[in-house]
Amino acid sequence: MSGSYKERGALNRLLQLTEDERRRGVIAASAGNHAQGVSYHATRLGIQSTIVMPERTPLIKVTRTRNYGANVVLWGNDLAQAIAHAQEIQTRHGMVFVHPFDDAAVIAGQGTVGLELLEQNPYLDVVVCPIGGGGLIGGMALVLKETNPRIRIYGVEPTVAAAMRAAFDAGGPVDVVTGRTLADGIAIRRVSELTYQLTRKYIDDVLTVDEENIANAILHLLEQEKTVAEGAGAAAVAALLAGKVPNIANKRVCCLLTGGNIDVNVLSLVIERGLVAQGRRMRMSVTIADRPGGLQAVTQILASTHANILEIHHDRLFSHAVLGDTIIHLVLETRGAEHGTDVVSALQNAGYSVQTK
Amino acid sequence: MSGSYKERGALNRLLQLTEDERRRGVIAASAGNHAQGVSYHATRLGIQSTIVMPERTPLIKVTRTRNYGANVVLWGNDLAQAIAHAQEIQTRHGMVFVHPFDDAAVIAGQGTVGLELLEQNPYLDVVVCPIGGGGLIGGMALVLKETNPRIRIYGVEPTVAAAMRAAFDAGGPVDVVTGRTLADGIAIRRVSELTYQLTRKYIDDVLTVDEENIANAILHLLEQEKTVAEGAGAAAVAALLAGKVPNIANKRVCCLLTGGNIDVNVLSLVIERGLVAQGRRMRMSVTIADRPGGLQAVTQILASTHANILEIHHDRLFSHAVLGDTIIHLVLETRGAEHGTDVVSALQNAGYSVQTK
Repeated sequence: MSGSYKERGALNRLLQLTEDERRRGVIAASAGNHAQGVSYHATRLGIQSTIVMPERTPLIKVTRTRNYGANVVLWGNDLAQAIAHAQEIQTRHGMVFVHPFDDAAVIAGQGTVGLELLEQNPYLDVVVCPIGGGGLIGGMALVLKETNPRIRIYGVEPTVAAAMRAAFDAGGPVDVVTGRTLADGIAIRRVSELTYQLTRKYIDDVLTVDEENIANAILHLLEQEKTVAEGAGAAAVAALLAGKVPNIANKRVCCLLTGGNIDVNVLSLVIERGLVAQGRRMRMSVTIADRPGGLQAVTQILASTHANILEIHHDRLFSHAVLGDTIIHLVLETRGAEHGTDVVSALQNAGYSVQTK
Repeated sequence: MSGSYKERGALNRLLQLTEDERRRGVIAASAGNHAQGVSYHATRLGIQSTIVMPERTPLIKVTRTRNYGANVVLWGNDLAQAIAHAQEIQTRHGMVFVHPFDDAAVIAGQGTVGLELLEQNPYLDVVVCPIGGGGLIGGMALVLKETNPRIRIYGVEPTVAAAMRAAFDAGGPVDVVTGRTLADGIAIRRVSELTYQLTRKYIDDVLTVDEENIANAILHLLEQEKTVAEGAGAAAVAALLAGKVPNIANKRVCCLLTGGNIDVNVLSLVIERGLVAQGRRMRMSVTIADRPGGLQAVTQILASTHANILEIHHDRLFSHAVLGDTIIHLVLETRGAEHGTDVVSALQNAGYSVQTK
């Protein structure tokens, strides 16, 4: 209901509250899916919820969390500051703090994903799953491996925020410096001792994916599977498509899609960049005569090759064109790389100097 | 497997072929889902398929249809010319022509959607379904109403291409002039006698939706349901969201999503326009002093209000600003309409003349 698996852990935690704790209400800090999972189920169970979100959280996420019935407090520049503020409020008002992953009841809730996987396909060979704090993979891997030790399980993190990879390498949780990533939903500075121990014990390896892998996966899911995934949610598919999951030929492989709450701004950008990567957007510079009809001769050729002009810009002052010539910069929509090459050839055959870059 | 319900009708038609017809192969004309449905199942059944597509069909659709194993012929400026060419090839080479909707076996195949609906929810009150040529709604409505006459069924067409609406009004199939629409997959010039008779007999009404309704529905499905629908596929949801489906309070309503093969170029445009409609993109003109630091004073205010500048353009020559002033045109990314108003106020409070439009 809230667009990610996070509600499983949140709901299980809420169901463990004593009568007294339910009366006091719950508090959580999150900019994303955890906020929605907690607020949605708290309201459903008649429990008051307070969610601290960083000040610059996109309005749509704030609105959605408020619509689920939470009391939203905007505080701080990042999640760490929001968490600190939530803990302060909790101390003052005595609510129950719901941690997004470092909590046995939350981990057990996420683990129900493993039960469903076994129910849907008892003969799975390989499961690939994104890792953030490690709550989902810890709970799920426990269920899967204790039931069938032959299932292989791989966790996936963005290269620029690989806290579980670092914990595996160091033999325990360590702080990592996290960079900006499309998979911001799983960019965590440090996993917990509890999630590390479970993950260490039950999974086969931690893989990492770069931003291009993630963008490709989002676009692939959109175009081929008709499914919207956020960067964090698409990380497992990203590892699979990038060929990073070992030994999968003729195996039954399951990639978990763990969340679909992608900002449409980001989605739009991923699509545009994907079109560039596929050669369906191209940029070129053409030298033309700086006189009436100079541009028309070029647009006529472009029209005859069925290329669509998206942007056009004249560079009269700063180009190195000879006097009497000018350079125009074009952004074109083409049917693909091959069509783009045809367009360039058509211009060159008509005597134009064309630069693509 | 081919991203739309079209394969149901195509498969049923292919399964009716005689041994001799199978050897001769099949031919169809389509720029979209019918092409993919026919080619996918023909190859699977070991039947040769030829698909005629209009010349300017996006490369990705051509490639996908080829990858399904079809012999793709690019011909003509629009679907009508492609169909004429397909019939010419058919006559010459004796293949079997697979019509997208005017064929009892195709209609029966689409009708299996009705069987599945009844299986999944025997207590449906209302079913809303896009109409193109009328194959799906004809087959499905027959199944539903013959099983349970109390189910209400509504068909939905784009206002600019409402061939079934016109047929209902005229008492039989007529030619309509079709305009450009996001729901190009159901923009048909004329329904057939067969599909008209079935639809007239079995459905309650034909509703129409405009382009903004369709764009809203695509965006809603993307953001709320994490599902990619093409314009034609989202038409039923568009009618529902626009409040055009009568008497639905406390009813069990099913909206069919009939296809997800949207061009990502179009998807990107729908998203961008949706952001504008939601106030998350705004355009404004601000009069500034035409001297060093003039722009900096504005960008500082924008930064302090957390508005992100996407585009900026100086208008020195054509504005009506007094000499010594200049007008800048800005495109901003904001958190929503309320945030946009705050940004304008901040500029006005600092003494700037701001125009939004």
